[in-house]
Amino acid sequence: MTSVDRWQLPDGVEEVLPAQAAVAERLRRQLLDMYRSWGYQLVIPPLVEFTESLLIGLGADLDLLTFKMTDQLSGRTLGVRADITPQVARIDAHSLGQSGVTRLCYAGSTLHTRPKTPAGSRSPIQLGAELYGDSSLAADVEIIRLMLATLETAGLDHITLDLGHVGVYGAVLAAAGLDDEQEQTVFDALQRKSLPDLEQALADADPRARELIVSLVDLNGDDSVLSAARELFAERAPDALAAIDALQDVATDIRRQRPGVAIYFDLAELRGYHYHTGIVFAAYVPGHGQALANGGRYNDVGGVFGRARPATGFATDLKALMALLPAEETGRGAISMPDIDDPALQDRVDALRAAGEVVINCLSAAPDPRCDRQLVERDGDWVVQPLNT
Amino acid sequence: MTSVDRWQLPDGVEEVLPAQAAVAERLRRQLLDMYRSWGYQLVIPPLVEFTESLLIGLGADLDLLTFKMTDQLSGRTLGVRADITPQVARIDAHSLGQSGVTRLCYAGSTLHTRPKTPAGSRSPIQLGAELYGDSSLAADVEIIRLMLATLETAGLDHITLDLGHVGVYGAVLAAAGLDDEQEQTVFDALQRKSLPDLEQALADADPRARELIVSLVDLNGDDSVLSAARELFAERAPDALAAIDALQDVATDIRRQRPGVAIYFDLAELRGYHYHTGIVFAAYVPGHGQALANGGRYNDVGGVFGRARPATGFATDLKALMALLPAEETGRGAISMPDIDDPALQDRVDALRAAGEVVINCLSAAPDPRCDRQLVERDGDWVVQPLNT
Repeated sequence: MTSVDRWQLPDGVEEVLPAQAAVAERLRRQLLDMYRSWGYQLVIPPLVEFTESLLIGLGADLDLLTFKMTDQLSGRTLGVRADITPQVARIDAHSLGQSGVTRLCYAGSTLHTRPKTPAGSRSPIQLGAELYGDSSLAADVEIIRLMLATLETAGLDHITLDLGHVGVYGAVLAAAGLDDEQEQTVFDALQRKSLPDLEQALADADPRARELIVSLVDLNGDDSVLSAARELFAERAPDALAAIDALQDVATDIRRQRPGVAIYFDLAELRGYHYHTGIVFAAYVPGHGQALANGGRYNDVGGVFGRARPATGFATDLKALMALLPAEETGRGAISMPDIDDPALQDRVDALRAAGEVVINCLSAAPDPRCDRQLVERDGDWVVQPLNT
Repeated sequence: MTSVDRWQLPDGVEEVLPAQAAVAERLRRQLLDMYRSWGYQLVIPPLVEFTESLLIGLGADLDLLTFKMTDQLSGRTLGVRADITPQVARIDAHSLGQSGVTRLCYAGSTLHTRPKTPAGSRSPIQLGAELYGDSSLAADVEIIRLMLATLETAGLDHITLDLGHVGVYGAVLAAAGLDDEQEQTVFDALQRKSLPDLEQALADADPRARELIVSLVDLNGDDSVLSAARELFAERAPDALAAIDALQDVATDIRRQRPGVAIYFDLAELRGYHYHTGIVFAAYVPGHGQALANGGRYNDVGGVFGRARPATGFATDLKALMALLPAEETGRGAISMPDIDDPALQDRVDALRAAGEVVINCLSAAPDPRCDRQLVERDGDWVVQPLNT
């Protein structure tokens, strides 16, 4: 490998240079401060854990996304976290072990073996919040509002909120009475929203079951979806009705508080179906095909750590948010100081820096190009003057 | 693996819980703000890179410390960064490619296959600053001052600054005229400051060479070390004199600006000898055996990326600093709000949160135990009142 290509970064692994890093840092602080003001306490989980701790049933996808290595100290397998949520669930269940409601938030780098989407990052900076110990819809609503406030704090508008509930598909599936193999094929086809595949998968199924499941493909859109679903499922899959009511209640709450957010129901939303246990949600903005933030209810995940707890939460990628914002002008407005050892100069510099100014020692060279002013001595005082360039 | 031990973390891999995470976050912000005010621009290098980019001659130790994995996309070897400095050197040399002086800073998680010291962390949060493009001692002095200011910002005092210069050992070694094998044995013995091993390694050497090298073992302490070294080396290793002068100059500068810092010279300091090219430094506080921060000059490392540049910098571990500070009280002083959908309440809550208060929705349960006040309605207004507990 020559010096010509030694600087190459792996595909999907990005560095962030000063103009954008300043945006990312500002946004990171604003968001963590906001989470704090809602009562969410910061935790800093480690970069790696044993795979037994990281891969706790939050989906088979997570296993495939996780880089694994052998720990030289224990001989056991370590995983680089591909998702911070399992770590926070462990902290809630074991490290903190509080009864009642626990609110936690975090911000940290994660790593994926493969990008989740074709143009996706393999090194997102995951930022999110989790609420444990409350199984009510009110907790889901709080998390959804915090997710929406996250995007709003990032300056994004025209937000669309996608709402789904894994209970709908679960009830319809149970009512259809398919065997295990059929279920898997149906699940795959439905995830892709492929009607031909779905009809093929259901070719041998009871016509009534087929009709019920196929109907899910079209059950996405505005509130009319909920009424259509109620009508369809009232007799044939009545267990779905509670999930539909929950979706209606959440939408009503969110609409009252955030009338500017468009709500889109998707009753065949199956992301995280195998670990989610209730409402699932995602937020989109125009011009960005992937969800910018998503989450859902995932009760009882902490059980593997000895304490099953109600849980709901969301996560976003700081790098994805940052990429939608204009870069900051980091290249202007600094003050140049001469490299002179004078206590009076140093006092002046300390005061300027404490007041938020950037003061750059010009060392042996010319002033840094970011400087538009300089410190000069006038009658024994150090004063800031325009830099004659 | 049962739920009983599934929560175990690998040795040397720590999580940070709310009380300490609040300290770490506050300190992180204070330090990055300070670096910014000195003209250092934040960069965010990625968690992994190809090992060809990470292992660029900053010591064989770094290779051993680095976890490696196969990249499924390229088939090449990835390393999880064990040190952020090589990444920043790459950014300076290639990604930014500026002429003149470039000042960069960073904060991020790193990972070590083994702890560097017996009780050390394997997952430090490395924080540091690098100055490229200036080969003067003034640049080293700026970096040392920034390192000292880092510890002072963390509230530490009674700081001892260790100063060394790889030029001293280099000149003495050249003057001694040892063969390669002798050099390696001498280097190992000297790193351990083991006089018996050193004398054994030099048993067959010329007595004058032996005397010269053995003298290094005792050349550590206050300023008298520099005069003793000048006397010893004036005729027999005159190339060492420039390095000794540089140490004197740096110490004089630092003393004038920070008279409270104790300076300790160590002419046999060989940490990073194979990549450092000038002054090396480390900072200690009483009661903490390991250096809390260290650094040095490492010119021309960027050459492997196509641009050799003068370079000096330092790094510290946010977790190590945090552990020396008292944990913050994060458990008090919040305001409880009822879970009521009233725009007037929401406006009041938004204003309180924007003003820095923590306002926690009590959902369906009792107020969060962190709350000592609550929002109650009085004559149509929402007011904050003490919480009767």
